[in-house]
Amino acid sequence: MPVITFEGVTWDYVPGPSLLDLLRRGRVKVESPCGGKGTCGKCRVLVNGGGPISEEERTFLTDQEIQDGVRLACLCYPQGDLEVRPYGEAERGLTVLEEGDMPPISLDPAVSFRAIKLPIPTLRDGKSLLDHLRSCIGVTEASLSLLRRIPQAFRAQEVTAVSHQGRVIDLIPSEVDDLYGLAVDVGTTTVVVSLVSLSTGKVLGSAGSINPQKDFGLDVISRIHHADSDGGLEDMRSAIVTCLNGLVDQVCVDANVSRDRIYEMAVGCNATMESLLLGIHPGSLGKAPFSPVVREGLSLSAEEVGLTLGNGAMVYCLPGVSAYIGSDIVAGMLVTELEEDRGIRLFIDIGTNGEIVLSINGELSSCSCAAGPALEGMNISCGMRASEGAVESVSLDGSVSFGVIGGVEAVGLCGSGILDVLSEVVRLGMVGKTGRLKEGPLVVDQDGARRLVLQKSPPIEVTQGDIRQVQLARGAILSGFLSLLEAKGLTMDDLDQVLIAGQFGRHLSVESLTGSGLIPKELKDRIRYCGNTSRTGSMMCLLSRSARKRAESLAGQVDYLELSVLEGYDRLFARCLQFEVSR
Amino acid sequence: MPVITFEGVTWDYVPGPSLLDLLRRGRVKVESPCGGKGTCGKCRVLVNGGGPISEEERTFLTDQEIQDGVRLACLCYPQGDLEVRPYGEAERGLTVLEEGDMPPISLDPAVSFRAIKLPIPTLRDGKSLLDHLRSCIGVTEASLSLLRRIPQAFRAQEVTAVSHQGRVIDLIPSEVDDLYGLAVDVGTTTVVVSLVSLSTGKVLGSAGSINPQKDFGLDVISRIHHADSDGGLEDMRSAIVTCLNGLVDQVCVDANVSRDRIYEMAVGCNATMESLLLGIHPGSLGKAPFSPVVREGLSLSAEEVGLTLGNGAMVYCLPGVSAYIGSDIVAGMLVTELEEDRGIRLFIDIGTNGEIVLSINGELSSCSCAAGPALEGMNISCGMRASEGAVESVSLDGSVSFGVIGGVEAVGLCGSGILDVLSEVVRLGMVGKTGRLKEGPLVVDQDGARRLVLQKSPPIEVTQGDIRQVQLARGAILSGFLSLLEAKGLTMDDLDQVLIAGQFGRHLSVESLTGSGLIPKELKDRIRYCGNTSRTGSMMCLLSRSARKRAESLAGQVDYLELSVLEGYDRLFARCLQFEVSR
Repeated sequence: MPVITFEGVTWDYVPGPSLLDLLRRGRVKVESPCGGKGTCGKCRVLVNGGGPISEEERTFLTDQEIQDGVRLACLCYPQGDLEVRPYGEAERGLTVLEEGDMPPISLDPAVSFRAIKLPIPTLRDGKSLLDHLRSCIGVTEASLSLLRRIPQAFRAQEVTAVSHQGRVIDLIPSEVDDLYGLAVDVGTTTVVVSLVSLSTGKVLGSAGSINPQKDFGLDVISRIHHADSDGGLEDMRSAIVTCLNGLVDQVCVDANVSRDRIYEMAVGCNATMESLLLGIHPGSLGKAPFSPVVREGLSLSAEEVGLTLGNGAMVYCLPGVSAYIGSDIVAGMLVTELEEDRGIRLFIDIGTNGEIVLSINGELSSCSCAAGPALEGMNISCGMRASEGAVESVSLDGSVSFGVIGGVEAVGLCGSGILDVLSEVVRLGMVGKTGRLKEGPLVVDQDGARRLVLQKSPPIEVTQGDIRQVQLARGAILSGFLSLLEAKGLTMDDLDQVLIAGQFGRHLSVESLTGSGLIPKELKDRIRYCGNTSRTGSMMCLLSRSARKRAESLAGQVDYLELSVLEGYDRLFARCLQFEVSR
Repeated sequence: MPVITFEGVTWDYVPGPSLLDLLRRGRVKVESPCGGKGTCGKCRVLVNGGGPISEEERTFLTDQEIQDGVRLACLCYPQGDLEVRPYGEAERGLTVLEEGDMPPISLDPAVSFRAIKLPIPTLRDGKSLLDHLRSCIGVTEASLSLLRRIPQAFRAQEVTAVSHQGRVIDLIPSEVDDLYGLAVDVGTTTVVVSLVSLSTGKVLGSAGSINPQKDFGLDVISRIHHADSDGGLEDMRSAIVTCLNGLVDQVCVDANVSRDRIYEMAVGCNATMESLLLGIHPGSLGKAPFSPVVREGLSLSAEEVGLTLGNGAMVYCLPGVSAYIGSDIVAGMLVTELEEDRGIRLFIDIGTNGEIVLSINGELSSCSCAAGPALEGMNISCGMRASEGAVESVSLDGSVSFGVIGGVEAVGLCGSGILDVLSEVVRLGMVGKTGRLKEGPLVVDQDGARRLVLQKSPPIEVTQGDIRQVQLARGAILSGFLSLLEAKGLTMDDLDQVLIAGQFGRHLSVESLTGSGLIPKELKDRIRYCGNTSRTGSMMCLLSRSARKRAESLAGQVDYLELSVLEGYDRLFARCLQFEVSR
């Protein structure tokens, strides 16, 4: 495949799209006020190897520019390797986005703000303060939270009006430079919150934690059952709300931003997590016919949800597909643009539930499987989430060596670390076909149980039980995607790309994915790791109303395959538990 | 004037309207499905003295019926005295309404309900429970409070859907016969709550109390100031919300109704009370240019306001006119149909604030004055609100005799009792022109202060200070309405009717109004007492969406006269403090 190089970063690409699109996919932001329609002439870049120039493109460029290698990115369709550099004034608009794989979006958040000067009422005008406000901002609903802000606003006179989808939700009694939003992934096991500037789209900080609902059950089914116990639903609801409020505190302190200035939170999560966050009984998700209470995207008052944000702030829950393909997966499809006609692509979100979506030239079908929390570092003796001190990569070649998040002392294993261990023990023949640890240098038998001792103090060990947990997760995901391929009459050879998403931090390696057998080795060159697409997709919806529309449309386009009723599935699952499986 | 007699009750009327309208004004409910359009023929009544029968009316009646004296009330236009009795089947629809002077309304509350049967979801329908619900009830907003009710509703299957203005707000997991609403008057000094059936319009019970905000100031101005103190606004807000929740408890227990079945509260009150109830800082009401934060009618979530009612229940705050002509007065205009062309009418709402509206053939102008809480039984040594044990009438002829609410031992004086005392001391010459108590049989001098001892134990006394308080209230109201008349170039002779509203219970006498000098004696025959029109008008809005529309329209039709800037007002006020005043 040909490659593009930009400021030291190189990525490969499939010819076809314009250079503008290709740069954006490489996370390079190019100013393009006309949206790539070839009318504004602003997306000039310096290109080495861009191929022939069309007549249309020429009309925007001087002879000197053409000679210097300037191209209009939206009208340039490269075929081979090329090097791109910023050009002239446009340079200021070129930035490498900080966060994960996010396709280009127009910065058009649901929340907007503008400075206004309120009039001074007179004795004879006979107007209410709300009437005066409307003379400045146009018709708006008289919500209680807005009414409560009006007296102070009229004392200040120069205020900032904050709107959500055109409805004024707050009046800040001063001028402000920026407002903020939150992109949130509420996973069954882990929760991540990112603070985002609504005027630049820049991520100002992120914080994560274990979902405190784990105390009520490690997977969605046990939590659904717990909702039937006395006070169970409310206990789980308040646990996650308290957790989110705490994470918001953390990102706000770190970024020195007042939480009063946060006006929207966009949330991606599975249907059970959504129900529990909103205090909706999840019972219907736990038994046939597995109906979610709601599938569409929801805009709700943050206060009603229990979140302490800015006055009148909203929560946007992304739309979901079904009980087991939630809004986190819609977020993933949004990020990977899975509805687009770009060959046959497989999207796998590895979490406590594994969800798999197959895109056959944009036609979408899906399945889900219960992987368990092992690959998120839970229910594993030395497991932890991907945060400081977590071992995220492991080599057992000769001696034990770790890559540790934050470069500090290793205190536990996160998902990618556990996958690496599995990959290494398979590679080094330290386990048999069934996953049983063989005797060997690092292997210790103690209290009748066998374990692999990676570090003595603090102890980092992998027990036989831990290996079983990962094996089960692997079996569930592998059998899921093989079933989905088979149902569509496809083989692994037909796949153009395998997109992996999950809470793995930034260092999930292709080697550990294939080495552990989670993804068959033959797909090695087609794997791309996309990071936490639930969070990234939530961020897209936070920042772009058109992304939000795309999400609503995407959610309606996905077919669902129920694995449990599939003939031969149990046999396939049993085979997928074994190592070196192929089909 | 000719009179109508119905089941022992007689009232006079001005010829012009149909008998249907005249009966309704006399609080007689007549079934009339077509709304009085002369098409359904259902409003048959037996009439003695109804005058000639039109050809149109004849087409609905048999010869026998005409011979028996049957008339169609909507097509009968009486001119003289007549006697009306129920007729045939229609008899069942004829009831005398229990509550105050309420003009006819169509029973069309904002809250409606209907039984529905929810479908059983299947594995292959791919719908959410909300989708299924919408297939039964049509498009509706996905509010959080509704979503939380869906799981239980689908378990019950046969449910009652409750709507507010067409938006579904609750799903009750059973069939129900009736739902309820609350008509509320929040006065500066007293609060009254009535529980009303939404399907019959019948009042099921009422409860009242002193407004607990009195601890923060006796009049609106002192409460507005208190809102500036630390926590002051929230203290006052939570005091009135707690009080209302308590009164709702009381009426629900008394009527054996679950508060979960109450879906709307309609509230009439002055602009300051509205601000304090809603937690909106009232500062702008307390200083020029006296702008209210909001004037329009508000539909707010009861939960957001802090009231514990049915799931998704709403609060409707009636529209107001200005800072000092609040929604309580709009309610009063609604009840008295003040915008109609029925001559020159004066409406006076006697409360801690006195508000006066003049209708010149439907053209409305208003003024307001600070009367103080004396006429509501507050700030008076033995004062109390009009409830059990309150002296509501007093005669000092020879000996002291009381009329006591509930027929129990007298424990204090309510507004009408105090007015009666004043009326009596004036009539018997026990006070001078300035209001000073003269020496006499009931008058005692003690600790340098003079007082009238009406009962020894429990002591019921009226001090010289109490008389001053009532005198001030009287002076404020009297000077207010005289100023308003003068501003419009009218004299008392021009007035066709004086409508008195207030929290006086049901026994305010014309004698005490004129005897105390609150209303000049020459208006004696034109006075009509309308009761607590703030509560009654709220009830109309609760029960009728068209009444709500009328209220919104009325609120925009009223001119306001600011007394304090009027030349000669202070002189007039001083004159009005004296007894036997005339102008």
